[in-house]
Amino acid sequence: MAKVKKQPRPKAQTPKGFRDYFGAEVSERADMLRTIAAVYHRYGFDALESSAVETVEALGKFLPDVDRPNEGVFAWQEDDSDWLALRYDLTAPLARVYAQNRNDLPTPYRRFAMGPVWRNEKPGPGRFRQFYQCDADTVGSASMAADAEICAMLSDTLEAVGIPRGDYIVRINNRKVLNGVLEVMGVGEGETREAVLRTIDKFDKVGESGVRELLGKGRLDASGAYIDGVGLAPESADPVIAFLTSRADGNSATLANLRSAIEGSTIGEAGVSELEDMAALLEAQGYGPDRIVIDPAVVRGLGYYTGPVFEAELTFEITDEKGRPRQFGSVAGGGRYDDLVARFTGQTVPAVGVSIGVDRLLAALRAKGRLSSAQNGPVVITVMDRDRMADYQEIVAELRNENIRAEVYLGNPKNFGNQLKYADRRGSPVAIIQGGDEQEKGVVQIKDLILGAKIAENATLEEWKERPSQIEAPRAELVERVREILSTHGLLADDGSYV
Amino acid sequence: MAKVKKQPRPKAQTPKGFRDYFGAEVSERADMLRTIAAVYHRYGFDALESSAVETVEALGKFLPDVDRPNEGVFAWQEDDSDWLALRYDLTAPLARVYAQNRNDLPTPYRRFAMGPVWRNEKPGPGRFRQFYQCDADTVGSASMAADAEICAMLSDTLEAVGIPRGDYIVRINNRKVLNGVLEVMGVGEGETREAVLRTIDKFDKVGESGVRELLGKGRLDASGAYIDGVGLAPESADPVIAFLTSRADGNSATLANLRSAIEGSTIGEAGVSELEDMAALLEAQGYGPDRIVIDPAVVRGLGYYTGPVFEAELTFEITDEKGRPRQFGSVAGGGRYDDLVARFTGQTVPAVGVSIGVDRLLAALRAKGRLSSAQNGPVVITVMDRDRMADYQEIVAELRNENIRAEVYLGNPKNFGNQLKYADRRGSPVAIIQGGDEQEKGVVQIKDLILGAKIAENATLEEWKERPSQIEAPRAELVERVREILSTHGLLADDGSYV
Repeated sequence: MAKVKKQPRPKAQTPKGFRDYFGAEVSERADMLRTIAAVYHRYGFDALESSAVETVEALGKFLPDVDRPNEGVFAWQEDDSDWLALRYDLTAPLARVYAQNRNDLPTPYRRFAMGPVWRNEKPGPGRFRQFYQCDADTVGSASMAADAEICAMLSDTLEAVGIPRGDYIVRINNRKVLNGVLEVMGVGEGETREAVLRTIDKFDKVGESGVRELLGKGRLDASGAYIDGVGLAPESADPVIAFLTSRADGNSATLANLRSAIEGSTIGEAGVSELEDMAALLEAQGYGPDRIVIDPAVVRGLGYYTGPVFEAELTFEITDEKGRPRQFGSVAGGGRYDDLVARFTGQTVPAVGVSIGVDRLLAALRAKGRLSSAQNGPVVITVMDRDRMADYQEIVAELRNENIRAEVYLGNPKNFGNQLKYADRRGSPVAIIQGGDEQEKGVVQIKDLILGAKIAENATLEEWKERPSQIEAPRAELVERVREILSTHGLLADDGSYV
Repeated sequence: MAKVKKQPRPKAQTPKGFRDYFGAEVSERADMLRTIAAVYHRYGFDALESSAVETVEALGKFLPDVDRPNEGVFAWQEDDSDWLALRYDLTAPLARVYAQNRNDLPTPYRRFAMGPVWRNEKPGPGRFRQFYQCDADTVGSASMAADAEICAMLSDTLEAVGIPRGDYIVRINNRKVLNGVLEVMGVGEGETREAVLRTIDKFDKVGESGVRELLGKGRLDASGAYIDGVGLAPESADPVIAFLTSRADGNSATLANLRSAIEGSTIGEAGVSELEDMAALLEAQGYGPDRIVIDPAVVRGLGYYTGPVFEAELTFEITDEKGRPRQFGSVAGGGRYDDLVARFTGQTVPAVGVSIGVDRLLAALRAKGRLSSAQNGPVVITVMDRDRMADYQEIVAELRNENIRAEVYLGNPKNFGNQLKYADRRGSPVAIIQGGDEQEKGVVQIKDLILGAKIAENATLEEWKERPSQIEAPRAELVERVREILSTHGLLADDGSYV
């Protein structure tokens, strides 16, 4: 008989660029999603959960004349028929859902969605190939009130999840204003336009003089390499610079600067009017420039969107992995996109939306120490006598029924030290001990593990005598005594629960 | 110039076997998951969210000598290297996570997980290729206390999500008892064993006499086709029948029947003892046979598991799509599987877990009318004058700040009838109207849409005069008056919110 070839053991690893989330990481994200959903819902948005898998055709990631789907998506072919793919955002599926159900959905259709999306991109530090998004979109409204509302909602949402006013800013810009600038410059469609847009994108890094050089002959970058310029005449840069530096003290002053930057361009004037409308609507609801401000330096996403664009930035500093202070930066962005549904139906449907990067927002709150990333460890009932497991189960059932998180130690009970080590690892505040003697006397030992750890670290003998970390209590008083200890450490909720 | 070939429009469709979830479907599932998570957490289980994508190697779905992964998973190859796949359950990823992190995780490791899983199977009515599971597992404990605890937790969970005691039953069986039966029958490994197991699986459908025929010469099935039998001697069926029919009145009687069915088999006796231990532990915690019962007719999953097996069944009848009453059946199942981690590490790690089919449970609650599947429609502020959008935004902001779900109509305001139709479609309880006249007088019109609908249906003229469905109120009293109307219809929460 032929020898069966032994299969090597599989590697226990997540695929490259993927990760697992444990304990508080999971519950903190769930809490944040719930909080965001509540704000979105209060604003009149309805929940939608589309399938994680879409046809590549619907996602629109099939390049013409190419056999395989575009890069950037995880895709596979079903038995020589359809190509399927994991969604890479929540907007493309929304366009598909709206086109598919447009006769049954209200118009305008306000919907929110939350869940993982997948990107087939090179992973990097802190950049994963699966991450959460939390979107809200209004489909079927051309009114600037829809855009203003989404900015107001974004501001409310950030405060609801624990970013206080002053620690964030929502900045608004408008794609049409940029188009107006290009029109004033005399830059039409084509390569020059692309080169100008790329240059504008670099404003953050190279500043005004850098942009002037790059639009003209070119410039030496920091590494000493020479970057070719777009080759425009020096004065052509003026409208771009006027646009990029138009932010002034207050929205009206900014709007006046923008008007002069795009003077003579119809599309540009339409863009400035849209910004003006949004500012007025936000003002009426009490959202001033301390929360939402017009800022023409917002260029992210200008290529994708067709009208207003906005971005929420956290303004506080955090310490990066190398100990240097840095701005946290953007946590959400969105804008108006009026062409997505037309792919399916041929009819243009105006739409505007926002996407919150939930994982980035969680990282920001953690970096600021505003999430404990700790959870309540369970009360651990130790096992002194493995034949009396039923008694221990009775104790644990009693605690759980009183809404106290608890468990019986289920490992090998032989070594009692291991049981206490386990309780320590779980972050347990209290351990319960009941051997045969205690059972006969109708009592239990209750060990305050938090106090015990403190005493072990730095208590004097007197303190130790005064506040013993272990007490003996009548069995009938178990729940009450455990609650007392939890309360001492500020762990008991108002309703007496510990969960 | 060559003509650019026009791309056909993509189809706006979910892939075959996938679906979208709207509004209350999403929030009801989120509520259920939160409720289940709270019970699991109270029992000492920690949350884990593993990546949706795994290597096919880690999932163990690569058949030897086959180029492509097994059927049943959605899989694709990454640039001529690893095969990746969507997880098909939450247990295989747990084995991978535990093997990968075993030095950092507590032992035993209690974890819960919830989320979608994907199956590359033929879809059918009510059977989708993406659905939610909600699992809890204890890894690293061989104690029957772990199994008993999971059954108790399953019982608590079903009650927490709204299945009252008496409407469900958790049935327990044990794989070792079945092995004992096979030992007593003299059936070893191999084809006969598989045939016997398949026959046992049919007990539900064909009953005692059917099983006897199928273990012997064979039988005519309902369609008239002759099904070949296993070919055993008639008396060989006795232990199987004794096993399958051993359920008696009360666990002790059932256990006695089982003992006699497997008399002489060591493995069988070990299985009966395990069942006995579980029953005693459950009894101590107050879980009697009205909630959790030993039932040897549970055969589902007996092939996969290595010890205790359990299944939660809803015992009430629902009406199926053809109007016939039927039992709802199984909504959760689990058991002990001691071999999964060994694939990675070579070391056997005992484990036991349960998986709740959340979508099935939701379907059951809906079928029983225990989920309203409705949500609070927003208060709609109509737009009488599109130049006064800022005023309407002020009104909506005021309502939202008072925790009342509200929105301004954002469609084309030209046709007022369309605005009321929209409010109707959204299930709005109240519409706010303020034209120029009202604004001058400092008032608003508040329309009770629920009362309005009732009146339109069946009110007499007197009733209509007595309780007009539209009132005029001073602008300053807006929130108060809206609350009054919501309260009339029982829609206002105790804290004055409507969300």
